[in-house]
Amino acid sequence: MPKYVYSFGGGRAEGKADMKSLLGGKGANLAEMTNIGLPVPAGFTITTEVCTYYYAHNRHYPTSLAKEVFQAIQKLNKAMGMKFGDAVNPLLVSVRSGARSSMPGMMDTILNLGMNDTVAEGLIRKTNNPRFVYDSYRRFVQMYGDVVMGVRPVGKHDKDPFEVIIEHKKKQKKVHLDTDLTAEDLKDLVAEFKKAIKKNTGKDFPNDPEEQIWGAVGAVFGSWNNDRAIAYRKMNNIPGSWGTAVNIQAMVYGNMGENSGTGVAFTRNAATGEDEFYGEYLMNAQGEDVVAGIRTPLPIVELKKARPQIYKQLDNIRRILEKHFRDMMDIEFTIQEGKLYMLQCRAGKRTALAALRIATDMVKERLIDDKEALARIEPDALNQLLRPVFDQKEKAAAVQKGLQLASGLPAGPGAATGRIVFNAADAEEWKAKGEQVILCRAETSPEDIRGMDASEGILTAFGGMTSHAALVARQMGKVCIVGCSALHIDYAAHSMKVNGKTIRQGDWVSIDGSTGEVIEGKVPTRPSEVMEVLINKTLDPKKAPTYQLYAKIMSWADTYRKLNIRTNADQPDQAQNAVAFGAEGIGLCRTEHMFFGEGKIGPMREMILSDTVEQRKKALAKLLPLQREDFEGIFTAMGGRPVTIRTIDPPLHEFLPHDKATQKELAKEMGIRAERIHQRVAELHEFNPMLGFRGCRLGIIYPEITEMQSRAIFEAAANVIKAGTPVFPEVMIPLVGNALELEHQAKIVHKCAEEVMKEKKCSFKYLVGTMIEVPRGAVTADEIAKTAEFFSFGTNDLTQTTIGISRDDSARFLMPYVEKDIYAKDPFEALDRAGVGALMKIAVEKGRGTKPHLKIGICGEHGGEPSSVEFCHQIGLNYVSCSPFRVPIARLAAARAALKEMKKPAKKK
Amino acid sequence: MPKYVYSFGGGRAEGKADMKSLLGGKGANLAEMTNIGLPVPAGFTITTEVCTYYYAHNRHYPTSLAKEVFQAIQKLNKAMGMKFGDAVNPLLVSVRSGARSSMPGMMDTILNLGMNDTVAEGLIRKTNNPRFVYDSYRRFVQMYGDVVMGVRPVGKHDKDPFEVIIEHKKKQKKVHLDTDLTAEDLKDLVAEFKKAIKKNTGKDFPNDPEEQIWGAVGAVFGSWNNDRAIAYRKMNNIPGSWGTAVNIQAMVYGNMGENSGTGVAFTRNAATGEDEFYGEYLMNAQGEDVVAGIRTPLPIVELKKARPQIYKQLDNIRRILEKHFRDMMDIEFTIQEGKLYMLQCRAGKRTALAALRIATDMVKERLIDDKEALARIEPDALNQLLRPVFDQKEKAAAVQKGLQLASGLPAGPGAATGRIVFNAADAEEWKAKGEQVILCRAETSPEDIRGMDASEGILTAFGGMTSHAALVARQMGKVCIVGCSALHIDYAAHSMKVNGKTIRQGDWVSIDGSTGEVIEGKVPTRPSEVMEVLINKTLDPKKAPTYQLYAKIMSWADTYRKLNIRTNADQPDQAQNAVAFGAEGIGLCRTEHMFFGEGKIGPMREMILSDTVEQRKKALAKLLPLQREDFEGIFTAMGGRPVTIRTIDPPLHEFLPHDKATQKELAKEMGIRAERIHQRVAELHEFNPMLGFRGCRLGIIYPEITEMQSRAIFEAAANVIKAGTPVFPEVMIPLVGNALELEHQAKIVHKCAEEVMKEKKCSFKYLVGTMIEVPRGAVTADEIAKTAEFFSFGTNDLTQTTIGISRDDSARFLMPYVEKDIYAKDPFEALDRAGVGALMKIAVEKGRGTKPHLKIGICGEHGGEPSSVEFCHQIGLNYVSCSPFRVPIARLAAARAALKEMKKPAKKK
Repeated sequence: MPKYVYSFGGGRAEGKADMKSLLGGKGANLAEMTNIGLPVPAGFTITTEVCTYYYAHNRHYPTSLAKEVFQAIQKLNKAMGMKFGDAVNPLLVSVRSGARSSMPGMMDTILNLGMNDTVAEGLIRKTNNPRFVYDSYRRFVQMYGDVVMGVRPVGKHDKDPFEVIIEHKKKQKKVHLDTDLTAEDLKDLVAEFKKAIKKNTGKDFPNDPEEQIWGAVGAVFGSWNNDRAIAYRKMNNIPGSWGTAVNIQAMVYGNMGENSGTGVAFTRNAATGEDEFYGEYLMNAQGEDVVAGIRTPLPIVELKKARPQIYKQLDNIRRILEKHFRDMMDIEFTIQEGKLYMLQCRAGKRTALAALRIATDMVKERLIDDKEALARIEPDALNQLLRPVFDQKEKAAAVQKGLQLASGLPAGPGAATGRIVFNAADAEEWKAKGEQVILCRAETSPEDIRGMDASEGILTAFGGMTSHAALVARQMGKVCIVGCSALHIDYAAHSMKVNGKTIRQGDWVSIDGSTGEVIEGKVPTRPSEVMEVLINKTLDPKKAPTYQLYAKIMSWADTYRKLNIRTNADQPDQAQNAVAFGAEGIGLCRTEHMFFGEGKIGPMREMILSDTVEQRKKALAKLLPLQREDFEGIFTAMGGRPVTIRTIDPPLHEFLPHDKATQKELAKEMGIRAERIHQRVAELHEFNPMLGFRGCRLGIIYPEITEMQSRAIFEAAANVIKAGTPVFPEVMIPLVGNALELEHQAKIVHKCAEEVMKEKKCSFKYLVGTMIEVPRGAVTADEIAKTAEFFSFGTNDLTQTTIGISRDDSARFLMPYVEKDIYAKDPFEALDRAGVGALMKIAVEKGRGTKPHLKIGICGEHGGEPSSVEFCHQIGLNYVSCSPFRVPIARLAAARAALKEMKKPAKKK
Repeated sequence: MPKYVYSFGGGRAEGKADMKSLLGGKGANLAEMTNIGLPVPAGFTITTEVCTYYYAHNRHYPTSLAKEVFQAIQKLNKAMGMKFGDAVNPLLVSVRSGARSSMPGMMDTILNLGMNDTVAEGLIRKTNNPRFVYDSYRRFVQMYGDVVMGVRPVGKHDKDPFEVIIEHKKKQKKVHLDTDLTAEDLKDLVAEFKKAIKKNTGKDFPNDPEEQIWGAVGAVFGSWNNDRAIAYRKMNNIPGSWGTAVNIQAMVYGNMGENSGTGVAFTRNAATGEDEFYGEYLMNAQGEDVVAGIRTPLPIVELKKARPQIYKQLDNIRRILEKHFRDMMDIEFTIQEGKLYMLQCRAGKRTALAALRIATDMVKERLIDDKEALARIEPDALNQLLRPVFDQKEKAAAVQKGLQLASGLPAGPGAATGRIVFNAADAEEWKAKGEQVILCRAETSPEDIRGMDASEGILTAFGGMTSHAALVARQMGKVCIVGCSALHIDYAAHSMKVNGKTIRQGDWVSIDGSTGEVIEGKVPTRPSEVMEVLINKTLDPKKAPTYQLYAKIMSWADTYRKLNIRTNADQPDQAQNAVAFGAEGIGLCRTEHMFFGEGKIGPMREMILSDTVEQRKKALAKLLPLQREDFEGIFTAMGGRPVTIRTIDPPLHEFLPHDKATQKELAKEMGIRAERIHQRVAELHEFNPMLGFRGCRLGIIYPEITEMQSRAIFEAAANVIKAGTPVFPEVMIPLVGNALELEHQAKIVHKCAEEVMKEKKCSFKYLVGTMIEVPRGAVTADEIAKTAEFFSFGTNDLTQTTIGISRDDSARFLMPYVEKDIYAKDPFEALDRAGVGALMKIAVEKGRGTKPHLKIGICGEHGGEPSSVEFCHQIGLNYVSCSPFRVPIARLAAARAALKEMKKPAKKK
C-alpha cells in the first residue's frame, strides 16, 4: 500500500527535495528545509498520487488516506505543542495546493482552517486579541464559503455576496474601512456569513475542524481541473496527469503586532545577480498585504537595523539555502511575535544578466560546475544582452501618460525609437539625411530590404512571427513588431490611424520588440554592453563586466557543444557581426537579397523582362560583376570559413513593381512601354506563389541564371584567393524534390567551376549540395545524396509543405490551434518534431545511407531556436545556421543539448 | 563465350519469339516466322548484347563477333542459294535496326548492301534488267554515303548533296522525273556519287561487300544514340541500356515487274476488330512507295482477284500467325517475281472497339483466356467508348477549310459542339433557352459549376490537365480543352480574339477533347453506343453489339480485381451514372459544390459575412434543410452503398464575388453595404490559399459549420432509412495533419449522430474518417488512426504539398520537367510513386499498425488513372474512387493489377 501522507516538523521530515513529483514543489522544499534544520511551521503533504487516484475513482479517496491524515494531525499537534480543534490551545492550519511545477495563483488556498466558535474563544483567551481572532474567523468563513461551498458571484457583474454583507455592515456602522470594524462587528459578520451560506447552499457551515479539512482537501484537488488551471497547464506544457499535492501546515501570523511581520526575498539580486540579500518585508502584516500593494514594503536591508537578530537569522538561512540548493532561491517568511518561520522556498526567476552572473559566480564559489552553469541559463535569455534597451522608468512613465498606441507581436526583441515613415524609399532618404526612422508597413517584401536596413525598427500591421518582416528583422538584428492590427495605414496620406489617434510621417514613435508595445513619442535607447564590445567596438572588453560574463559562458558552451554554428547572412557586415558572435561559417547566403542592392535591381528587371535567351544573357552579363563583388565581400569577411550560397529562390514577380505608378516610372527608365511590365507581372502572377515557379525550377528553365551565379561565385573565389584569403564556397540548390533537378543544376555549377579554375589558373575546394525543403526531397534523400555533397534543411518551407500551412496566412487559425493545444507551439517557431522532424529523420537516414559522412545542416529560422537546436543535435546534424544575433543562443542551446544527452543513461539493448 | 549472332532461313532459326530482349522485336519474330515454316528471306541477327558491349568498350566489338558474322554469311548464302559479293550469283542484303520495343523510323537502315561494279554486272547478267540494277546500286551508294559516311546536308536550308547531283543530271538530260533517267544515266550517277563521297570525306567508297557490312553495322549501333532515338526513348520510357539488335537479311524486291509487289496488312480489322483480312498492297513497288504515298495502294481483298494464289497463301499465313501468336498481327510482305516473302510481323495497334472485339472473339475462339483478354486492353482506351463522337470526315473537312482556330490541352476527351458563351450565367441562360453551348473562360472556379454543367464543353485559356476546369469537366463527363493560350478573351465585349479571328458570343465552335483541337463552326456529334445503353437508356442492350463487348470485358474485370471501385460524385444524377458504370460507393462527395446550388449560395454568403457565432448559426440554420435534401438525394441514389461525404474544404473567399459590380449587386440583395462585402473579401485574401484557411481548419475555428453539416448528413440518413432505403454514410474530415484536429472534429460528428438517432428514434451505421492529403498526415498516421475509422488519400493535394507544386501554377515548369525527363509523367496525372507513393506507403503501414483492418482508399484524380490504380492495389488499399466516367477504366485497371501480381513468381525469402 503506498504512503499517501508525508509529515514534516520538529526538525524532521518524511519527504525531501527530490520528491517533487510526489509531493509537489512546495511540499518537497518544505520537507527539505525542515530536514536541514530551518524553522518551518510543522505540517504534512498529501501526495499527488491521491489527486490522480481521486480523478481516476470518480472523486473518491483511497481508503487508507483518512487514517494517515489522522495520524499526521497527531504528529502536527505534537510538533507545534498545540492541538487542532482544541478549545484551550487550538491549532489553525492552512491548506494549499502544490504541483510539481509552480502554477502561481491557479489553484485554491484556504487559511485559518480549524476555526469555530469554541476555538475562537480559546484563541481569544490565548492571544488576548479578540479583533485579530474574529478577523481571522470571518476571513476563514468567507474563503471556505467561496472555495469549498461555492458561494460566489454568478454573473460577471454580480458582487461578491460576502462583500455585500461587509458593505452593509460598514454602512450600518457608518465607517469607511474594513479596519474600522470592531471585534464585535466582525463576530456579527461571521454569523451573517454562515447564514448567507445556509441560504445559498441549503447546507450548514461545518463547525467540525476535521470536516473542514476534508472539504478543503476536496476543493484543492477539484481546483486542479478548474478552467484557469487547465489553461495555464496548456500554456506551460504541464501534463494534466501530474496532479497536485495538498499541503496542510500550521498557521503562523505576521499580523500579531509590531513584533510580527512577513517578507519575500531572493538569496541574490534577481536583476543583476550580485551576491546580496534582495527583497522586501512589512511588519505587522500578512503575505497578502505585501502582494496587494496597499502598504509599501521596505527593502530587506532595513530589517538589519530594525530587527538585527531576525536579519542575522535570515541572512544565515540565505547562506544555508544557497549552499544546500546550489542556486539562487526565492523565499517567503513570516515573523510571529519575534519568531522567524520559513513558509516557502524555490529557485528564483532572474534576468539574463543575473542568470549569467549567478552561474559564473557559483562556479567560482564551487557550488556548481560549468556544465550545471550552462543548464541554468535559458538560451533565449541571451537576447536580452544584445538588444538596445529602453530606460524602463521612462517607458512606464510614457505608458502612464496614455502614450501607448497599440501592441502587436514581439518579433524582433529590443527597443527602438525613431520617426515614422511608411515606405522603404522614404526610410532610406530620411536615414541619408541623418534621421533615425521606424519603417511602418502593412507588410514588407524583398523590395523593402534596403529601407528596413535603414530603419531602427520595423512595424507591420499584418504577418506573424515568421513573416518576411520578422524574418529579415531578426537576421538584421532589427527591432520588430508585426501583426499590429490596430494600425490603419493610409499610404497616400503618409499617415495612419491607430485607436483613434492619427500618426503622421515624421512623428516619433518608440517600439519595444521584446513586449510588442508601440508608444507615441521618443523613449531613449542605448546599445547593450555586449554589443558595444563585440559589434560597435566602442568599449574595451576589460571594462565590460557583463561582456566578461557572456564570454565566459560562451567559452564553456563551446567546450561541450557538438554542433557547429553557422549564420544566415547576405552582406559582409552581417557576416562580420556573426563571426563576432561566434559563427563558424555561413549556412545560408540568399543571393536574391543582393539583387535589390545598388545598381542591381535594374539589370535584374531587364533579365526578367527579356523575351529571348539572348536578351536574358545580356542582362545577366551586367549582373555578373555586381554579384561577384558581393561574393568577394562575403568571402573576405568569412576568411576561409565555409560559405553556403543559395542560388536564386523567390518567384520572379517579386522583383517587379506591382503598382501602376511605379511600373510606369520603371518603363520610362528602361525605355519600354509600361504595358510590357504590366503584362509580364500578370504573366508571372501565381495562385500559390509559395508552390510555384521558384527555387531550382527557375534555374532549370533558365539555366543561364544558374550559370551566371556560379560564375560570380567562382570568379569571386578565385579573386579572393589571389588576394591572399582562403575561401570555401558551398553552392546550394534550393527547392529540390527530385534527384534529377539537382543533377541538372549541379552539372552547370561543376562546369562553371572547372572553367573558372582553368581561366583564372587557380584551384579551390567547393561543394555542391541542396536544401531539403519539400517532403519529396526528404523521402527521396537516398537518390538526392548520390549527387549532393551536403544537405541543408530549409525548415521554413519544409514546415509549410509538410503541414500544408502558408505561414503568411496562418495567423487566422494557427494561433487558435496553439491555444487549443493542437500544436503545443507555433511550428514555425519551434520545430514540429512529430511531423517535420519525422521527415528530417528520414532524410538523414536515407542521405547517410547513400553517403555515410554526408554533411547535414539546417538553415531555417529554427536553427536559432533552442528546442529545435536540441532536436538537430539529437538527429545528428553537423551544424545549425541562424541569424547573426541568434548565434550565441544557438551556441548555448547546442551545448545544453550535448550535456543533456551525456546525462541520459545509456540505452539497454 | 556468349553467342552473338543468330541465323534464320531455310526453315530453321536459332532464335525464337520470346528472345526479344536479345534479338529485338523484329529479329525475334523473323526467327519465329522462320521456325513455323513461313517464307522469310534468310538472314541473321547480331544481338543487343553486342550493342551494349559496343558502348561499354569505346565502340569496339567483341573479338569473336567477326568469325560469327562470317559463318552466318556462309549459312545465309547456303539458305538463299546465292553468294554475298559473288560476281556470278550475287546476294544483296538489308541491314536494319531492331530494338526490344518498336522505335519506328528512329534508327538507320541500309538496303541493297553488297553491291559493287562487279556485282552489278553479275546481277545484270542474272536479271537482264540493267536499269533495275543501277537504280538499286545508286540508291545503295546514296544511302550508305549518308548513313555510314556522313555525306548529308549540314545546315537546315542546305540541299542533299546527292539530290543536287541528280538534279544536275536531270537538267543535263533535260528530263523531269527520276524514272526518266536511263540505266546508263544511273550508272553515271553511281560514279558521281562516289566522287562526291571522296571529295566530302577524303575516303573512298568501300567496294568490298564485307567492309560494307561492318560500316553498316557500326552505323546502326551508332544510331541507337542519335538525338531522335534518345528523345523517343524518353517519351516512351525505353531504357538506353537495352540497346538495339542488327538484322542482316537477304534482299527481296517487289519492284521486279508486274509479277512482284509489296504490302502491309493486319490479320483482323484494326478499326472494328472484325475477323477479316485488312490491309493494302501495290504491285511492282517497294515498301517505301507504299509509305511515301506516291501511288495509291489497293485494298488487300483486290489481291484475291488479281493474284488468287498469292492471296490464298497470305490468308493462310494470317491464320497461322494468329494461331501462333494468339493476337492480331501487323505484317509486311513482298512478292518477288511471284514468290511471297514475309518481312516483318508484330502485334497490331488497334482502336478500343477493335481491342474489345478481338479480345472477346479470341476468348470465344479459345486462342486466349479471359485473363489474357484483360491484359490486352489498355484501360484508358475505354474512354473512346464513352465519349460523344465527331464524324471524322466532317472534322477533317473543316480543318482543311482552315476552320481550326487553335489547340490546347485535351483535358476531357470526347467531341462537343455548341455556341460559345463567356460566363457561367450566360451558359445557364442559353441552355434554359434550349441552346447548346460551349463555355469559354480564362479559367474556371467553383462559382462556374452550374454554368459548366449547362454546357456541352468547356474551353479555357489557362490551367493544366488537373486545373479546376479539367477536374470538374472529367467528373461531369464534359468535353474539355484547357490551357488554350491563343485565346484572348474580352469579357466586357463578349468576344475573343484567336489567331487573328474574332469569335463572338453565340458563334458556333466545335472542340475535340481527345485531341485539343478547337474548330470554328458546327461539326455534328452523337453519344456513343455504350452511353446510349447505360446512361441515356435510349438503346436496348441486346441491340448494342459494342455495349455487349464492353459488358463482357467488365464482367471479367470484376472477377479478378481486388480493389473496390467508388466514384467522386456530388449530385444524385452523377451518382446514378457512376452506379451504371459499376461504382460500388461514393469515395468523395464534395459538399461545397452543393453550396452553389439553387438557393444555397445566399445563406452561405450570409454565413461567411457573419460577425458573430449567433449570426453564423442563423445562416447555417437556413442551409441545414437544403443540405439535408442534397444528401437525401445522394443516399437514395446510392441505395445503401457507402457514401463518403467530405465536410467543407475550400477557402471561404471562393464563395464570395470578387468583382466590385457583383459585390454591389449582392450587397443590395442582402441589404448590407457593399463595403462590408469588399472588406470581408479583403480579409479573407490569402497569399497561398492552397495552404491557408481551409479544410478542417474551417471546422475547428467555426465548429458550428461541422455541426450543421453533420446534422444534415444524419437527418438525411434517418429520413432515407424511414423511406425504406438503407444508408451508409462515412463522414470525412479534410486536410488533417494532426491527430488532434481529427479528434476535435470527430467529437462533433459523433455527438450529432447520437443526437439525431435519439431525436429520430432510429439507428444506422456510419464511420468518421479523414483524408490524408498533407505529408504530416502521412507521417503521423499511427496517431490519426486512433480516431480515424478510415483513411482516404487526397492525392491531388498530397502531390501538391509533397512536391511543393501548386498545380494551377505548374504549367510554366512542369511541362518542361516532363520533357527533360525529370518526372517521367505529370505527377498530377500519374501518381508519383517515389515521392507521394512513399508517403502513402508510410501512412498505410502506420495506420494499419494502429488498426490492422483500417479501411483505406484514394479519392484524388489518380484514382481513375491506370498506373496509379495499380500502385493502389500494390500497397493494399481497399478501394479507389474516381469520376463517374472513369469507373470502367478503374475496374479494368484494378483487374490488370491483380492479374499482374498473380503472374509474379512468389518472392524467395
